[in-house]
Formats: sequence, structure tokens, C-alpha cells
Amino acid sequence: MLYEGKAKKVFATDQPELVRVYYKDDATAFNGQKRGQIEGKGAINNQMSNLLFQYLAEHGVPTHFVEQVSERETIVRKVDILPLEVVVRNVAAGSFSKRLGVLEGTVLPRPLVEFYYKNDELGDPLLTDDQALVLGLASQEDLAELRTRALEVNRLLQERFAACGLALIDFKIEFGRLPSGEIVLADEISPDTCRLWDKDTHQKLDKDRFRQDLGGVEDAYQEVWRRMKGGLSA
Amino acid sequence: MLYEGKAKKVFATDQPELVRVYYKDDATAFNGQKRGQIEGKGAINNQMSNLLFQYLAEHGVPTHFVEQVSERETIVRKVDILPLEVVVRNVAAGSFSKRLGVLEGTVLPRPLVEFYYKNDELGDPLLTDDQALVLGLASQEDLAELRTRALEVNRLLQERFAACGLALIDFKIEFGRLPSGEIVLADEISPDTCRLWDKDTHQKLDKDRFRQDLGGVEDAYQEVWRRMKGGLSA
Ligand SMILES: Nc1ncnc2c1ncn2[C@@H]1O[C@H](COP(=O)(O)OP(=O)(O)OP(=O)(O)O)[C@@H](O)[C@H]1O
Ligand SMILES: Nc1ncnc2c1ncn2[C@@H]1O[C@H](COP(=O)(O)OP(=O)(O)OP(=O)(O)O)[C@@H](O)[C@H]1O
Ligand SMILES: [Mg+2]
Ligand SMILES: [Mg+2]
Repeated sequence: MLYEGKAKKVFATDQPELVRVYYKDDATAFNGQKRGQIEGKGAINNQMSNLLFQYLAEHGVPTHFVEQVSERETIVRKVDILPLEVVVRNVAAGSFSKRLGVLEGTVLPRPLVEFYYKNDELGDPLLTDDQALVLGLASQEDLAELRTRALEVNRLLQERFAACGLALIDFKIEFGRLPSGEIVLADEISPDTCRLWDKDTHQKLDKDRFRQDLGGVEDAYQEVWRRMKGGLSA
Repeated sequence: MLYEGKAKKVFATDQPELVRVYYKDDATAFNGQKRGQIEGKGAINNQMSNLLFQYLAEHGVPTHFVEQVSERETIVRKVDILPLEVVVRNVAAGSFSKRLGVLEGTVLPRPLVEFYYKNDELGDPLLTDDQALVLGLASQEDLAELRTRALEVNRLLQERFAACGLALIDFKIEFGRLPSGEIVLADEISPDTCRLWDKDTHQKLDKDRFRQDLGGVEDAYQEVWRRMKGGLSA
């Protein structure tokens, strides 16, 4: 094992350029202050991420995905994860609503891209472009590329989720660099990392059910995965 | 009286385009959680601001300054204050050091401009450019202009303070819009709004002495003003 995170374990393989990711049922929120388990989450997040990475790849977005090897395990290209978490928001929610006083549910005039410093000790603080540059966390070119990629991923995911009756409120993605220098989408895309609301009822079908003790956490993950697999709205 | 803030009172005059600002000795920190008095501060901040606004105006930076009318009172052009506090940092300190894990005193590779949402209820949160745009707080052109102005003010202030043996660590400025649409520098520039360290000893000569209970608060304000008036390093 190379690394154990809050939601996944990363293992070496016999090929140095590949790693095996194992998805756990462990859930954390508020920078690890709240902890729990969501039964079956690992299997759902793994399969859903893989389905979405394949969909994105088919639409021209390079990702780390190589091959699913079990319900909870996937082989991915090993990358150097960039120290920026990239968040795209379509609708105000969560920390954005709270920090900036915008009512949850307010549709933004256009998608908003934000960068956060991937640093658990500091609690993943928001970064301006200028701060990221001055701290040497990325180059101007990197930031421009991440922004373009993030908006493209947003457009594609919105479309894919809409076909399942799900509104993509916001999401967090991570990018990594291959030995060649190429930047690819990495980590995961799941109800842990996306806010997904039922298109019509606005019911929350994501980790906010865990964060906010709304109940029905397992059901929400299963409902999302049921809709995604089917590909058509309920 | 039109407005009473934490450090100043603003009065109408018989000319609608002008207001009279009265500088109090009241001091607050941490978004008003810490309160106190700094004896003589009002007189120093008023006179120092005016000296600096005149200096900046002579060097091509338009400001709200019109005329000092007493030790604590000044006539300024009435503006609509933009809802962004503009911070320029030359050296890591304060919230920047804490949030981003950069040791206080670290010289930044170049001056950093930051925008904060001027909103006491929200605690003046940091804004990315994109957030400011999406929230409709400023236009792209405004942000570019504020950034250029802020860096120019920084260059001029650094030079002026250096001549007094003071290192300008960081500062907060506010801009306002005249009825004509023109943006001018407004509010104040003082040890309340600048971090100033003795060039050689790095002794703090600003409101951090109050924030951090370092003692000698009044002496620090007086020392800065003594050096500024004289115009030459001690
Ligand atoms: N293709 C990849 N190559 C190398 N590392 C990866 C790859 N994809 C994801 N990772 C990293 O593997 C780890 C996955 O574990 P997990 O998501 O549980 O971490 P985490 O608890 O969120 O902590 P972290 O703050 O490190 O992301 C993360 O650090 C993630 O950035
Ligand atoms: N030329 C000007 N015309 C109109 N208002 C001004 C001008 N210059 C400064 N102001 C505003 O006058 C007020 C000065 O009061 P003070 O500095 O005590 O406010 P504050 O407690 O910092 O609160 P605030 O959050 O409103 O700035 C501020 O709101 C400032 O933005
Ligand atoms: Mg993670
Ligand atoms: Mg003020």
C-alpha cells in the first residue's frame, strides 16, 4: 500500500506507471471532523467514477482510468496529483452559500471555477489565482488549462446527469501529471465529490445527507447509481 | 451624521458632493470581536492619511482627499465605496500566513493583490476574481483597474515608508466611485490599515500591537507619525 486516504487506499502494482485504487465505505466530512461509514459506498463510487471517466474519455477528456478489476478496485495511471482541488459550481450551496451569503439553490449566472489548496492541515483553503501563483502551486498556463478542462468536464457531466434526472449543483475534481508532463483528470467522481439534486424535487442525493444528518444516506447513493446504470430518468 | 463606522464618523456638509470624516480613537480587531481605544490614534490616522493621499495624488493617483479641517477631521469627496477591500501583500503576515501556512516574515516573490468582500456580517471573506464577477460585485474592467491602481499605490507607499525606515508588509485600501463614474482611492491609509515593521529590527509598528496584545500601542502609532512627519529615517 502506497497511501491510505479518507475514502480510498492506493496500492502499487507490478507496473510502476500504474496503481490500484481500493474504494472504502469510510466517510468523513468537515475536514475529517465528522466520521462514519456509508454501507456499499465504496462499490458505488468505484463503479460510478469509472463509468464517468470512460464517458469523459469518449468525449475527449483524458483521465487516469485504465481498468476496473473488482466492484471496489480499479487500476489507474499513477500521477503526481496537483496540489489544487478544482471546484465547479452551477448552483450556490455548501461553503459557497455560507461564506458569501448566497441562498442555497440560487442558480449562478454561469459556472464558477474555484481552486483550493489541497492541504488537509490547512483545511484546504480557497486560493485566488494570484495566491496559487505566488505560492508556486501552479503556473499561469496550468491554471488556464485546469479552468478550461473543469468547465468542459462540467458541461459533459451536467448533460450525463441530466439524462438521469439529476441536477449537478457543484463538484470537486483533482488533476494529476503523468511522467510525460500531460495533465489528466484523476481521483474520483461520485456522490462523495458531487452535489446532486433530484431535478424536480431538489432532494439531495449526495454526501450532504451524511454531512447534514439528513438520513437515507445509503439509499441516496444507491438511487444515484441505479439511475446512472440505467441511463434514463426514473 | 451619515454613518458611524468602527474607526470614523462620516458627516454631511453643505455641499452634497463632499463629506466630513471624523477620526475616532476607537480600535477594533477580528471583525469587531476585540474592542478598545488607542489614545491619540484618530489625530495620527487623520494626518497620516492626508499626508499619504497628497503624496499619492502628486504621483498621479486620484484620491478622495480635499482638505484637512482639524487634527481629526477632513473634508473628502463623497464616493460610493466599492464593495471590495483591496489588500496588497509584500511579505507574508496575519491571515495570509495562518490560512496558507507561510511563515510570517517570508518575503513574497512579487506583490500579491487580494480582493475581499466588504461585508461585516460575512466577516469580509476572500474573493477570487471569478467569485466577484459571478456575484456581480465588480466588472472584469474594474478588477483590472483596481489591481493596477493597488500595485501603483504599493510601489509609491513602499518608497515613502522606506524613506522613514519602515517596511510596508501589507495594507488594505478601499476605492470609491465618483458621480462621474471615475474610481478614486478613498477611506484611510494608517497604522490601522497597514502593517509597518521597522526596517532593521522588524519591530511591529501598527495595529498588530493591539490585535496581539503586544503593548506599546500608542507609542508605535506615535513613532510612525514622528518618522513620517520628519520624512527621514530615525
Ligand atoms: N491516479 C492517481 N495517482 C496517484 N494518486 C492518486 C491518483 N488518483 C487519486 N490519487 C490520490 O489518492 C488518494 C486517494 O485517497 P482518498 O481520496 O481517500 O484521499 P483523501 O482522504 O481525500 O485525502 P487527500 O487529501 O490526500 O486527497 C488522494 O490523495 C488522491 O489525490
Ligand atoms: N470618500 C468617502 N465617501 C463615502 N464614504 C467613505 C469615503 N471614504 C470612506 N468611506 C466609508 O466611510 C466609513 C468609514 O468608517 P470606518 O472606517 O470607521 O468604517 P468601518 O468600521 O471600517 O466599517 P465599514 O465596514 O463600513 O468600512 C467606511 O464605511 C468607509 O468605507
Ligand atoms: Mg479524496
Ligand atoms: Mg474602515
